[in-house]
Amino acid sequence: MLLSCYRKLISYIRNKEIARKYSVISAVLEKPNGWVKNLRKQKDLIFADVSDGSCAQKLQIVIPKNLASDSLTYGSSVSITGKLSKSPRGQLELVAEDVKVLGTCVVLDGYPFNPRTTHPPEYTRQYLHLRSRTNYTSAILRIRSAVTKHIYDYFALNSYTNIHSPVLTSNDCEGAGEVFKVQPDSEATIKAMMQENKDKDSVYFGSKTFLTVSGQLHLEAVCRGMGNVYTLGPTFRAENSRSRLHLSEFYMLEAELAFCETLSHLQGAIEDLLKYVFIETRNTNEADLFLVDKHNKAPSWVDKEFVTLTYDEARQILGKKGSALTDEGINKEQELTLVEYCNGSPVFIVKWPRDMKSFYMKECSEDNTKVEALDLLTPITGEVVGGSLREDSYEKLKSKLPSDRLNWYLELRKFGNIPTGGYGLGLERLLQVLCNVSNIKDTLPFPRWPHNCDM
Amino acid sequence: MLLSCYRKLISYIRNKEIARKYSVISAVLEKPNGWVKNLRKQKDLIFADVSDGSCAQKLQIVIPKNLASDSLTYGSSVSITGKLSKSPRGQLELVAEDVKVLGTCVVLDGYPFNPRTTHPPEYTRQYLHLRSRTNYTSAILRIRSAVTKHIYDYFALNSYTNIHSPVLTSNDCEGAGEVFKVQPDSEATIKAMMQENKDKDSVYFGSKTFLTVSGQLHLEAVCRGMGNVYTLGPTFRAENSRSRLHLSEFYMLEAELAFCETLSHLQGAIEDLLKYVFIETRNTNEADLFLVDKHNKAPSWVDKEFVTLTYDEARQILGKKGSALTDEGINKEQELTLVEYCNGSPVFIVKWPRDMKSFYMKECSEDNTKVEALDLLTPITGEVVGGSLREDSYEKLKSKLPSDRLNWYLELRKFGNIPTGGYGLGLERLLQVLCNVSNIKDTLPFPRWPHNCDM
Repeated sequence: MLLSCYRKLISYIRNKEIARKYSVISAVLEKPNGWVKNLRKQKDLIFADVSDGSCAQKLQIVIPKNLASDSLTYGSSVSITGKLSKSPRGQLELVAEDVKVLGTCVVLDGYPFNPRTTHPPEYTRQYLHLRSRTNYTSAILRIRSAVTKHIYDYFALNSYTNIHSPVLTSNDCEGAGEVFKVQPDSEATIKAMMQENKDKDSVYFGSKTFLTVSGQLHLEAVCRGMGNVYTLGPTFRAENSRSRLHLSEFYMLEAELAFCETLSHLQGAIEDLLKYVFIETRNTNEADLFLVDKHNKAPSWVDKEFVTLTYDEARQILGKKGSALTDEGINKEQELTLVEYCNGSPVFIVKWPRDMKSFYMKECSEDNTKVEALDLLTPITGEVVGGSLREDSYEKLKSKLPSDRLNWYLELRKFGNIPTGGYGLGLERLLQVLCNVSNIKDTLPFPRWPHNCDM
Repeated sequence: MLLSCYRKLISYIRNKEIARKYSVISAVLEKPNGWVKNLRKQKDLIFADVSDGSCAQKLQIVIPKNLASDSLTYGSSVSITGKLSKSPRGQLELVAEDVKVLGTCVVLDGYPFNPRTTHPPEYTRQYLHLRSRTNYTSAILRIRSAVTKHIYDYFALNSYTNIHSPVLTSNDCEGAGEVFKVQPDSEATIKAMMQENKDKDSVYFGSKTFLTVSGQLHLEAVCRGMGNVYTLGPTFRAENSRSRLHLSEFYMLEAELAFCETLSHLQGAIEDLLKYVFIETRNTNEADLFLVDKHNKAPSWVDKEFVTLTYDEARQILGKKGSALTDEGINKEQELTLVEYCNGSPVFIVKWPRDMKSFYMKECSEDNTKVEALDLLTPITGEVVGGSLREDSYEKLKSKLPSDRLNWYLELRKFGNIPTGGYGLGLERLLQVLCNVSNIKDTLPFPRWPHNCDM
């Protein structure tokens, strides 16, 4: 446990555990380990900014020249002993008494990063194994960690049960066909398990098996035994898309609400979650957010009310702007136009044409050509959340069921059924919105997209 | 947000948010939604135990006979309005004023569970989509959710960054060969992306791609930029094993500690985590733990110190009992014998023969035939944690690197390298130990094992 900065100490003082932690932090600050992020040499002194990677702030180390060796360079790892004091500007600094270089870093030997340089994301993305050493990537990853924690806290405070929905599944929930299939790599395993009438795709599990595209159907099963549930985990699409908004592997938060009878109930839950996560992240990661979005371009809609438009209203608004909707729904450009129309507020589009949406969505009682579905649109990314009320009529669901393989899903409606609704939120897109990140590949440590899975 | 029980209310009173929540809870308790778990009929009254699935306790509803219809049965879902009062025994109960059956449950129509019956796990496992409606499974899943939350809290309190290590990878970290391979299901996608010299296995990502067996190597990369890191997520093995301790998909907690120079440092971190999680889970889920382990057979080693034995000491102890070790290491029976020898305390086995362990483990300075590795053994499951210090010498690691594909991993040692150590903990095995669960398939909602991936 290493804490290299004053701000972190301040944040701990707000914490109830401070009594125990305070002495630990002082000890750590007087003997920090970390990496040299910057060096400034004066006549008799060297000033080194050292970071342990746990927060955006660095600790300034004042090093008498006789204590420094040539291997004390930008990028090297160091272990330092000294005394804490205040700099002339009143900031905490450490006057070194001993400086040990643990790992050298010779830029000329192939280290791809340079001091006092902001490398563009396209460049650092070529060095996934090293890019968490840059200020920008480490700030994003700290924000991602904090957002994840705040999501867990939110659902715990609101009495949801966390369900680890499976990655491996024999369902293809969305029916889109853009799935990865899975089989053992070992020919020996396949041979040993081979049975009559089976092909290689189904020999291990007994049926063809895919990587999940959504945990919704599994959540719906558990929701009918345990009430409100959620899952946050990896999800997959085998699309041949290299856009700034798509990944082959991404994290999705999905929640299913028990006894949920109206879209407005669902919308309230989504708005409540997003505002909680935004406010908490600003509290815990202010310096990181400043580092990744210096001009504060990320939308500050925490205090605004989210807007609601029906699909038909959205169509009219776009029509007046000369942008007609097709059977494919609302495209990315149109999504961003609608957000702009709402002055940059997030906007729910509700009550979608039935034929555009999935079989499990509940028909609107007032118009059975529409379903009780919603998309939430935001600046930067457009859609970040999709959700719906679920069809709770056994007979109606039976008539729309796309495959006998989903008979288990139908059976959920047969015994002690309840009305439910739920939503899915793309974690990476949320981070794009929160941090003003143009390309989704910079919101996670090891992005996977077509032709890119090198580590 | 629905809370059906008194205990939950009590636990909220301990919470700082009580002021806001208290009125919500009272309102909810006077208008609960849930499932009928038990019915007792008297002359003029019906007593129904209703659960909303969010905790082990049920709320007793007192229903005047004229308010009840025939569809009010075991397993049905209900929405009730009434007044809270105290029963003659002093417990909270609800005197119903209105009873609405939302979903019927006709046992004769194929519902597999019966009232006042404890179904064996082998039976409920045949109904994965319905088994979260049983008391036993829902209790385990609540404990799993709580353990997960406590793990996140522990690492946040101790300033670790949560890293979502990827599921898709071109590495096979352990080199064991028991991996699943992945490719798009769509022949059209494969055809569209086909290039010369590529086979179907590598056309999408440009190289053959597997499901992860460990996030360790990825964590080590981030640890060298951001300090202490951890990941908790799904992990995969394509083994043909149907034992009570193996799954094809399971959750693994992995942590990597920066500036970690001794095994005892690593052991301390593991013991600290496990004791935190055990104590917190007992605080938050006492009733669930009682429900799954009535005779409290789960080991109560929270207050005991963990024992440490070297591999050589373990060999001598087993030798005296007539159980010789082979080159394969310590087998399951021998693991449990060692735990018994230590009076049921968890025991670390440290300093393993180099040839039994992975290439990335650090050689012991006093004996280069051994490595700085540890296994933690417990009752019920044997091994639950494996870990090691990592080889931090560039030259030594280079000589042991199993594949050029891992050159990125080697390069981590070239620039600003630090000593690190880490461990992996199987979440399902931890739950087996905590809840006294014999078969690992009962510790998660949707287990996957050979010939079983039906939903």
